[in-house]
Amino acid sequence: MSEDRTVTVRALLDAVRGEGRTSLTAPEGKVIAEAYGIAVPGEELARDVEEAVAAAARFGGPVVLKIVSPDILHKTEAGGVVVGVEGATDVRNAFRAIVANARAHDPAARIEGVQVQELLPAGQEVIVGAVTDPTFGKVVAFGLGGVLVEVLKDVTFRLAPVTADEALSMLDSIRAAQVLRGVRGQAGVDRWAVAEQIRRVSQLVADFPEIAEVDLNPVIATPEGALAADIRVILAERQPPPRRTYTRDEILGSMRRLMQPRSVAVIGASNEAGKIGNSVMHNLVDGGFAGDIHPVNPKADDILGRKAYASVADVPGEVDVAVFAIPARLVPAALGEVGRRRIPNAVLIPSGFAETGEHALQDEIVAIAERHGVRLLGPNIYGYYSTWHDLCATFCTPYDVKGPVALTSQSGGIGMAILGFARTTRTGVSAIVGLGNKSDLDEDDLLTWFGEDPHTECIAMHLEDLKDGRAFVAAARATVPRKPVVVLKAGRTAAGARAAGSHTGALAGDDKVYDDILRQAGVIRAPGLADMLEYARALPVLPTPRGDNVVIITGAGGSGVLLSDAVTDNGLSLMEIPPDLDEAFRRFIPPFGAAGNPVDITGGEPPSTYEATIRLGMEDPRVHALVLGYWHTIVTPPMVFAELTARVVAEFRERGVEKPVVASLAGDVEVEEACQYLFERGVVAYPYTTERPVAVLGAKYRWARAAGALGGGS
Amino acid sequence: MSEDRTVTVRALLDAVRGEGRTSLTAPEGKVIAEAYGIAVPGEELARDVEEAVAAAARFGGPVVLKIVSPDILHKTEAGGVVVGVEGATDVRNAFRAIVANARAHDPAARIEGVQVQELLPAGQEVIVGAVTDPTFGKVVAFGLGGVLVEVLKDVTFRLAPVTADEALSMLDSIRAAQVLRGVRGQAGVDRWAVAEQIRRVSQLVADFPEIAEVDLNPVIATPEGALAADIRVILAERQPPPRRTYTRDEILGSMRRLMQPRSVAVIGASNEAGKIGNSVMHNLVDGGFAGDIHPVNPKADDILGRKAYASVADVPGEVDVAVFAIPARLVPAALGEVGRRRIPNAVLIPSGFAETGEHALQDEIVAIAERHGVRLLGPNIYGYYSTWHDLCATFCTPYDVKGPVALTSQSGGIGMAILGFARTTRTGVSAIVGLGNKSDLDEDDLLTWFGEDPHTECIAMHLEDLKDGRAFVAAARATVPRKPVVVLKAGRTAAGARAAGSHTGALAGDDKVYDDILRQAGVIRAPGLADMLEYARALPVLPTPRGDNVVIITGAGGSGVLLSDAVTDNGLSLMEIPPDLDEAFRRFIPPFGAAGNPVDITGGEPPSTYEATIRLGMEDPRVHALVLGYWHTIVTPPMVFAELTARVVAEFRERGVEKPVVASLAGDVEVEEACQYLFERGVVAYPYTTERPVAVLGAKYRWARAAGALGGGS
Repeated sequence: MSEDRTVTVRALLDAVRGEGRTSLTAPEGKVIAEAYGIAVPGEELARDVEEAVAAAARFGGPVVLKIVSPDILHKTEAGGVVVGVEGATDVRNAFRAIVANARAHDPAARIEGVQVQELLPAGQEVIVGAVTDPTFGKVVAFGLGGVLVEVLKDVTFRLAPVTADEALSMLDSIRAAQVLRGVRGQAGVDRWAVAEQIRRVSQLVADFPEIAEVDLNPVIATPEGALAADIRVILAERQPPPRRTYTRDEILGSMRRLMQPRSVAVIGASNEAGKIGNSVMHNLVDGGFAGDIHPVNPKADDILGRKAYASVADVPGEVDVAVFAIPARLVPAALGEVGRRRIPNAVLIPSGFAETGEHALQDEIVAIAERHGVRLLGPNIYGYYSTWHDLCATFCTPYDVKGPVALTSQSGGIGMAILGFARTTRTGVSAIVGLGNKSDLDEDDLLTWFGEDPHTECIAMHLEDLKDGRAFVAAARATVPRKPVVVLKAGRTAAGARAAGSHTGALAGDDKVYDDILRQAGVIRAPGLADMLEYARALPVLPTPRGDNVVIITGAGGSGVLLSDAVTDNGLSLMEIPPDLDEAFRRFIPPFGAAGNPVDITGGEPPSTYEATIRLGMEDPRVHALVLGYWHTIVTPPMVFAELTARVVAEFRERGVEKPVVASLAGDVEVEEACQYLFERGVVAYPYTTERPVAVLGAKYRWARAAGALGGGS
Repeated sequence: MSEDRTVTVRALLDAVRGEGRTSLTAPEGKVIAEAYGIAVPGEELARDVEEAVAAAARFGGPVVLKIVSPDILHKTEAGGVVVGVEGATDVRNAFRAIVANARAHDPAARIEGVQVQELLPAGQEVIVGAVTDPTFGKVVAFGLGGVLVEVLKDVTFRLAPVTADEALSMLDSIRAAQVLRGVRGQAGVDRWAVAEQIRRVSQLVADFPEIAEVDLNPVIATPEGALAADIRVILAERQPPPRRTYTRDEILGSMRRLMQPRSVAVIGASNEAGKIGNSVMHNLVDGGFAGDIHPVNPKADDILGRKAYASVADVPGEVDVAVFAIPARLVPAALGEVGRRRIPNAVLIPSGFAETGEHALQDEIVAIAERHGVRLLGPNIYGYYSTWHDLCATFCTPYDVKGPVALTSQSGGIGMAILGFARTTRTGVSAIVGLGNKSDLDEDDLLTWFGEDPHTECIAMHLEDLKDGRAFVAAARATVPRKPVVVLKAGRTAAGARAAGSHTGALAGDDKVYDDILRQAGVIRAPGLADMLEYARALPVLPTPRGDNVVIITGAGGSGVLLSDAVTDNGLSLMEIPPDLDEAFRRFIPPFGAAGNPVDITGGEPPSTYEATIRLGMEDPRVHALVLGYWHTIVTPPMVFAELTARVVAEFRERGVEKPVVASLAGDVEVEEACQYLFERGVVAYPYTTERPVAVLGAKYRWARAAGALGGGS
C-alpha cells in the first residue's frame, strides 16, 4: 500500500517535472490526496446524464454539478454551476440545464462533460499545510481557517513527519483550541480525523522532498469527520545540496579533545603586548592550564618562557587543539599544516572571513578542514573557556568560577556580556564558547558534547540562526531528558519578509516556526539576554520539581499579590491547600494573617514564623515548590531570614528532601547580600523584583515537563 | 429630543422597578433602543394578514414572521416561524400558514397576532455592551462577535460615556481590528455606524446609573450600516452609596501642608529604642528636617532633647502634620484632639485596622476625620518621605538623594523594595509615600499633588486597587500632559471570578478593564515591580522624543540584532535611513560594517568611530532617539565609551539639542561602572541586557504619545 502510493506519486511528480511545471493541477492534487488517504470530496467527470446520476448516487448526499469545457473560463457566469442537487430527477434536470446554458453562452464551446462533486458539509474551517523551512526543512502547519485567523495568525508548526499523537497535540497548540472542542453547547470536531489529515500531509512532504508546499485550505471539520475542500501542491525549484555530517561518535571524539585537551598549540603566539597571540598565551598560562602549551611563531625562539616552534609541524607529541591568532589570509596554509599534523581541532579567532564579505576565503578553509578531518571553531570568535580544565583559550581574561553551566554565543559581543555577568554574579561555569561564523562546529555539535559532559548540568545558547535545524532538534531531544537547554534566539522579529507561494507559507513567519519547534524539542526559550543569563545562573541551582503544587509563603501581603501574578504569568499553578495543611499553617501565623495560598504570615513576624512555615512547606510531600516573599523588618533582618532559610533547605536536603525554593526580597540594600548568600546555598533569590524568581522557577518547570520529570500535581 | 428620550426611558425604568423586576423584556428593550437611536430591526405586531403585508412593505426587504401567543412557548416547534419572506403574496401565505400551524399545534392557544420583523442582513457580527465596573463604574465594551472571539476574549473597554472619536478608536483597539477594515478583498464595515452604536449605548448607561448592564449581541455590521439583532438591559439591584469627595483646591491645600510642612507633631514619640515612636523621631531629626518637630508623649518631659507635650492640644503654633506612632486602639481619641487642634493631616503608621479585620475601628477614625476635616494617610503604613524638605516621617531609614521621582506604594513590603532599589541605584527621589489601607488619602489625591509639585517630574505608583477609578483617571488625565505616570497594578491575574449576568460582563475580566482604561488615561503600565522601579529611575533622565525615528548604533552586531528585536517588542520603529544619512554613516565605519539600521560600526573600532557616529545621530534632526550597543574591547574600554558618549550628549544639550539616548553595554564587569557614569549624565545605560534600555525608551515613547509630545516621524 505504502509502496503503491510512493510509486503513484513518484510517477506523477516526475511527469509534472518533465513538463517543466512546479505547480500541480487540481486533478493531479486529487491523485496525490487519494494516494495518501487525504480525505477530499468525491468527484467524477460525467460525460452523460446517466453517468452523472450514477456518480451522485455513489456519493450519497447532495452534490455540485459544474460544466467542464476548455472554452468556458467563468463557469458560474455561463450558468455552468448548480449547487446542492440530490436525487436522480434533480441531478438529471440540473445536468441538462447546465449543458443547455453552456451552449447558449457559447455555441462553439467544446463540452467535455459535467463534473459531479460531493458537497462539502457545513463545519469548522481549519487549515492544514506543509512548507519547506530554510532552517528546519519540511514542517507541517495547522490552524483555524477563515478571515479572523488569517488576521490573528493563530497557527502552529511541527517538524514533518509527525506521529498521530504529535498531530493531535497541534489541535491544542493554537490559541483558539477551545473552538475545536466545542463551545456554547456545540459539538466538537472529530479530532482524530483532523489529526489524520495533518499526519498524512506531513508524511507526503517527508516522502517527497521535492514537494515544497502543500495546502489543504480549508479542511471542513465536523463532529463526524474532516474533508479537505481543496489540495494545492507546489514543487521546489531546486533541492538544497547535502550537508557534510558527522556521526555522534565522531562529534564526541573531537569535542572531547577540544574541551579536555592535554596539549594546545598557539599559532601566532607572540611576546608583543597588545597582540591577540600574546593575550591568548597569557590567558592560557594565567588560567592555569595544566597541559602542554606550545607557541608557534617562526620569528621567535621562546614565548613567555616556552620554546616556540617555527611551524605546528615541529611541535612534539599529540596536539589536541590549534588556536589560531594569525591574520585571516595566513590561515589556509597554517590550517593545511594542522591537518597534516592530524590535530583534530582548529580554533579560529581571526576575523576577515564571511562576516567581512570574504566568503571565498571561508569556503577555502572549510574545504581544507574537511579534506583533513579537522573540525573548525569559528572563525571570528573570542575563543573558548573550558573551566574545569583551567583552559582559557581566548583574548579576554581568565574565568575561574568552576560550575555547572555551559554558555555559548554566536556573537562576540554577547560573549563579553556572558563573561561580565558571570563574573559579577559569581556564576559557576563549565564552558563559554564563541561560535562566530560557524563555518563548521555549531550548536548541535556543542549540545551533543555538553549533553555528555559530566561537569555540565545546564546549557545556555545565544544564536541568530541554525545551520541545520533538524540536527539541533535531534541533539536537543537527546540532551533535554538529562539537562535543561536554554536558547536565546535573536532576530525574532525580523521575520516574515520571506516570499511565500502558499497560504501556509504566508503564515509561517520564521519566528513562529522556531518557537513551536524549539518548544517541541523541549528547549527553554529565553525571551531576552538578561533572561538567558539568569536562567543559566539559576536553573542548575534549583532541584527538579516533582509535581505542580506551588506554595507562596510571604511576609509582605503586597509581594504575595505580585508573586501570584507572576505564578500565573509563568504557567504555574498555586496549590489548593488541603484543610489539614491550611490548619497547620494557621497555627504559626497571626489570626489576621491569611492562610490559603499565598500563605501571608504578615509583616511584623519574628524569624521563628518564617522558619516554621518554610519548614512546613518543605516537610509536606504534597507541596512541590516554594516561593518566598520576604519583607525587611527590624524583627527579622535580611541576613537572619537568609540564614534560617538556607539552614532549613540544607537540613531537608540532608534528609533527601529536595524542592525548588525561590525568594523575592523586599527591603533596604542589605537584601542584596542576603540574596547572594541564599543563591550560593541553593535558594534562587532576587532583591527588588517579584517577577524574576518566579520566572526562573517557571523555566525550571518548563524543562521538568519536557524532561518528563513531573509527577502528579493536585 | 434628548429630554424626550430621558423622560421616556425614566418612565419605563420606573415602571419596571415598580414591578420589582431588574430585567427588561424584549419590547421594553426596543423602546429604549428607539429612544437612544440604537438601530435594531424594525418590528411590528400584525393582528391580521393585511397589517402584516403593510408592515413588511414598510420595512422594504425580506422579513421574519413569528406567531405571538402567550400559550406557545416554543414557536419553531409549533411551526410558528417563517424566515426570509418578501412580497405581498408570500407574506400573506406565510401569515396564514403560521396561524394554521399554531392552531393545529394547540387548538386552545390564544393567538394575538404575528410579529413581523426586519430580517438581519449578512455581515460581520460584533458585540457592543456596557457594564458597571466596581472600580470604574459604567464602562462600554466592544469586540467581534462569534464563537472565536468568545474563546479569544478579544474585547476592549472605555469609560462611559464615550465621544464619537473614542468610540471609533475602539474599533482599532481589538487584535482582530483588520477584519473590520476588510480582508481578502472584502469591503470593510461602516465604521461610523458601529461607533454610533457604541456611543449611544455608553450615553444610555451614563444617563441612567441604575442600568447595570446592556448587551447588543450581536450587532450585524455591514458596509452599509450596523444593526443590533437584540438589546438586553439589566438593572442594578442597588446603587453604591455616594463617596465623600474633595475639590482640587482642598486636595492641593492639605497635600501642600503634608508634603511641605513647617511643623510636625509625633504622637507617641518615644525615647525607647526599638519603639516606632523612637524610630520616627530619630528619622525626622537625622533626616535634617528644618521645621519644628514636636514630640507628644504624656509620660516624658523631653524626647531626643526636644520638649515633649502631654497632648497635641498643648503643642504651640500651627502644626501641619501629626504622625501617629501609638497603638490602634488609642488612635480615635488622639485623632479627635488632632481634629480639634485643626491639624490638617494625620499620618497613621499603626496597623490593627481593616487589614486585621478591625473594620469598625477604621470606620470610626474615618468618621472622626471627616467630622474635623482631617485627611488621613494610612493607616498601616511605613510613613512617608518628602526629600526636598528633608522629611523622613517613617520608621525606616532616611533617604537623601533628592531628585525628580515620586513613588507611592499600597503595600509596606513594596515600599521597602522601593527604598532599597532607590538607594542601590542612587535614584533621585522627590517623595516616597505609603498608602496602606487608604482609609482616606489615595492615589488620586497624591497624583493631583505630584502633578503640581515642581520637584516631581515622574510619578510611579504601586497599587492593588483603586477606591475610585474615575477620580484616578481624572487626576491622571490632568497630570499626563506634563509628567509621566507609571502604574504597577498588582492582582492582574486574580480576575475573572466575578459573577456576571450578561455576555459583556463575562468578557470584562477586571484586568482587561484596568488595562484599557489606564492606557486611555495615558498611564504607563509597568508589567512588574522591577520594571516600575526602572521606569521610575530612568524616565526623568531621558529627554522627551520629538518623533518616531529610532536609530541603533552598535559595535556588536549581535547586540544590534537583539536591540532590533527589543525595538519591535516595545512598539518602536527603526528609522529607514535616508540615502544621504546612510552615506554619512558609511564614511565612518569599515567597508564590511553595515550601515542601514542598525548602524553596525563593527567590534574592533576605536573611540573615534563611536564618537563620530553618535555625533551624526545627535546632529541629524531627522533622527529622534538613539539606541547604543557597546562591545567591550581593548581598543575602546568601557569608561572611554562612557566618557565620550556623555560628553557628546552634554555638548548637544548645551546647544539645545536633546534626544533620548539609551545604551546596552556588553562586556566585563567594568561596564557596570560605565553604566552608572552614563546614567548620572543623562544616558540610560544597562549592562548585560539588550531589553531593558529599549523597554525604558519604549515607556518614554508611550508617555510622549499620550502627552501629545510627538511630532512627525519618517
